[in-house]
Amino acid sequence: MSVSTTKVDAEERRRRGMALYRDIMAVEPTEPATPRAATLIDFVFAEIWSRPGIDLRSRRLIAVSCAAGADAHSTLADHFYAALKTSQFTVDELDEFILHFAVYCGWPKAEVTETILKEQLVRLHAEGVAVVSRRLPQPLSAAPADQELRKLGGEQCFREVNCCDAPPRGVPYYESGILNFVFGELWRRPGLNRRDRRWITLACVGLDDTIIPIQSHVYSAMKSGDITYDEMRELVLQFAAHSGWPKAQFMQQSVDEMYERINGEASIEPWREDGLDGTGPA
Amino acid sequence: MSVSTTKVDAEERRRRGMALYRDIMAVEPTEPATPRAATLIDFVFAEIWSRPGIDLRSRRLIAVSCAAGADAHSTLADHFYAALKTSQFTVDELDEFILHFAVYCGWPKAEVTETILKEQLVRLHAEGVAVVSRRLPQPLSAAPADQELRKLGGEQCFREVNCCDAPPRGVPYYESGILNFVFGELWRRPGLNRRDRRWITLACVGLDDTIIPIQSHVYSAMKSGDITYDEMRELVLQFAAHSGWPKAQFMQQSVDEMYERINGEASIEPWREDGLDGTGPA
Amino acid sequence: MSVSTTKVDAEERRRRGMALYRDIMAVEPTEPATPRAATLIDFVFAEIWSRPGIDLRSRRLIAVSCAAGADAHSTLADHFYAALKTSQFTVDELDEFILHFAVYCGWPKAEVTETILKEQLVRLHAEGVAVVSRRLPQPLSAAPADQELRKLGGEQCFREVNCCDAPPRGVPYYESGILNFVFGELWRRPGLNRRDRRWITLACVGLDDTIIPIQSHVYSAMKSGDITYDEMRELVLQFAAHSGWPKAQFMQQSVDEMYERINGEASIEPWREDGLDGTGPA
Repeated sequence: MSVSTTKVDAEERRRRGMALYRDIMAVEPTEPATPRAATLIDFVFAEIWSRPGIDLRSRRLIAVSCAAGADAHSTLADHFYAALKTSQFTVDELDEFILHFAVYCGWPKAEVTETILKEQLVRLHAEGVAVVSRRLPQPLSAAPADQELRKLGGEQCFREVNCCDAPPRGVPYYESGILNFVFGELWRRPGLNRRDRRWITLACVGLDDTIIPIQSHVYSAMKSGDITYDEMRELVLQFAAHSGWPKAQFMQQSVDEMYERINGEASIEPWREDGLDGTGPA
Repeated sequence: MSVSTTKVDAEERRRRGMALYRDIMAVEPTEPATPRAATLIDFVFAEIWSRPGIDLRSRRLIAVSCAAGADAHSTLADHFYAALKTSQFTVDELDEFILHFAVYCGWPKAEVTETILKEQLVRLHAEGVAVVSRRLPQPLSAAPADQELRKLGGEQCFREVNCCDAPPRGVPYYESGILNFVFGELWRRPGLNRRDRRWITLACVGLDDTIIPIQSHVYSAMKSGDITYDEMRELVLQFAAHSGWPKAQFMQQSVDEMYERINGEASIEPWREDGLDGTGPA
Repeated sequence: MSVSTTKVDAEERRRRGMALYRDIMAVEPTEPATPRAATLIDFVFAEIWSRPGIDLRSRRLIAVSCAAGADAHSTLADHFYAALKTSQFTVDELDEFILHFAVYCGWPKAEVTETILKEQLVRLHAEGVAVVSRRLPQPLSAAPADQELRKLGGEQCFREVNCCDAPPRGVPYYESGILNFVFGELWRRPGLNRRDRRWITLACVGLDDTIIPIQSHVYSAMKSGDITYDEMRELVLQFAAHSGWPKAQFMQQSVDEMYERINGEASIEPWREDGLDGTGPA
């Protein structure tokens, strides 16, 4: 019985996708019965998740951010399940992810996300799977309850994360939001490292469709050295598969524009002379 | 047993947040067990809802618009429950909110929102809580069934709400949508007053991510005198906590730009010389 | 008993809306009890779905795209039910719609959409309604498993669909996403015709809020001759009712700008001299 080359290729493509799905989602995949399910295996897994440019932990953070932003509860549940079952993430890290997501997409949406996580913890417990709660003893939160101390810390953290001057006080959005909490508390928390927070933030600003936050975070992710240009280009493809090609188009454009800008700044001290007025990023 | 100053501050922060949550959400709060839940109390309630700049009724309208837009059903349900239990809103006013939301975020999403409201009415009834259906006898709708009469009224209402000329007829989006219904019927309905409609609209255009509607409604909210500059800056912070900091960044930028524009117009008749071509707002 | 003219008009308006709802949604409508439900009949059905400018099949594709994008599960379910019950769409066509939606709004959101479709198939089966699975024997997918062959086909298909040069290779987003799959596989599939794919794409880019994809697809839909200017203006109104007036504002603006641009190009060969750099559309 002869098999055409194309047939073999299609089978090979499917086989590669199924193997990756099994490893990444930590369940046995069923044979897909619809175009969406077939291309999830043949394209999204076989031809995107398979790419070496960024590691699977980072791809997972992008995927869960996109799924949470899209209210895609079944996809989100499956990723939470797999992230815990494979010990890729601890429960504490996923709780911290949800807080970071709350800041970038709002507390109401994050409450839904937390419900999905709790359901998966019940499911894993029912299956007798032991999950890792935390890797280290719980540290004290780095943020003081005193708002003035938090704002001072927020101004310093803002400069480090955004590679530009901190915004002025006196505007509620900036003073009581950005300085007091977003950089005065959230980004200084120990629950996730800075690189983890970058992936979540980049996916969330991409979801939020606001031009300056996208450009600012794409810029600072590369400028800080946290994420390379090649990794950023992989991020865009991973984001496209999970949030759609149109939203990813502006992300791709911003990656190229900000990379060019950084190259033009190469010999200049990071954030002082970069032309940002310090009020952009969020 | 000595307690450090910071510890007392953290306890005080939590206590303030819990008390506000109890008053605003009309239920006894449980001690938060996750970072998201803890910061909802310590930051969103203790440090945002506590601010005096805008009243709680207005904050509620912003919160329910954001939660409905975010498909955050549990947060939305809790706000509907509290809004009725405290008699802050009547059932008729929430029904009217849902219609206003339908126009700015689409009828399909509003249908989901209405289902959440109905569930909360059942819950309140089961708890034996009497809710206020309406404060006044139901008035006749202000809008005639005749389309030409509605469009004429829509042109006048458009000028009053948007502080600029009405868009031209002949384009289905403007003539059969904006003039015939959005301003010919919706904004002329008596179910909510104009200031209530402003809060909902501002939150919804912020959710919708479209530049000109955001700028137009930010402009006209202040130009009309319905909402002050300081209130607008509080709106941005309230919006940020419920829809995320990135979306709120453009809102903040627009508030400052439109405030500057209005100051430049101070001695000029409101809508004739303002440079808008009358086709912008939606 | 005398009845005022306005009263008769309001009754006539309601009657027209109810009749259209019955035909289009394939169920007996109940008398609406809320402002949202009343205006769905009196405005969305009586004054938008009733318009002759585009056919009901196209209006349905816009409505389901918007409802799926808005996570409006009950509206989406009702449209899937009606689309199958009236044999307006086959099951295969709706499965193909879901794949197209996955590419433009992400696979996670499309997985939810597919669940809703499956529930409606169960409902129709329980009601004893026979649905049409497919009109033609299932063709082999037009896309080869070999990536190089797909990319070559993708470059050709990109030019035909977007009326401009294909983007360069070497960028993951473009090479492995746009060329390899979006135009190398999706748009070449036989499951829906090009005009069907246009309606879905236009609604989805409108939902995604990204400027260049909106402008590109509005341009190419008209430039290719697939959709006329008048049809595009009807699309904007249909989109507005299902996704809100603010998002539709930029769509309307783009329709006018792109129509003007195409008129300026009238005597020039379609895609070579049009000023696009070939990297825009997604």
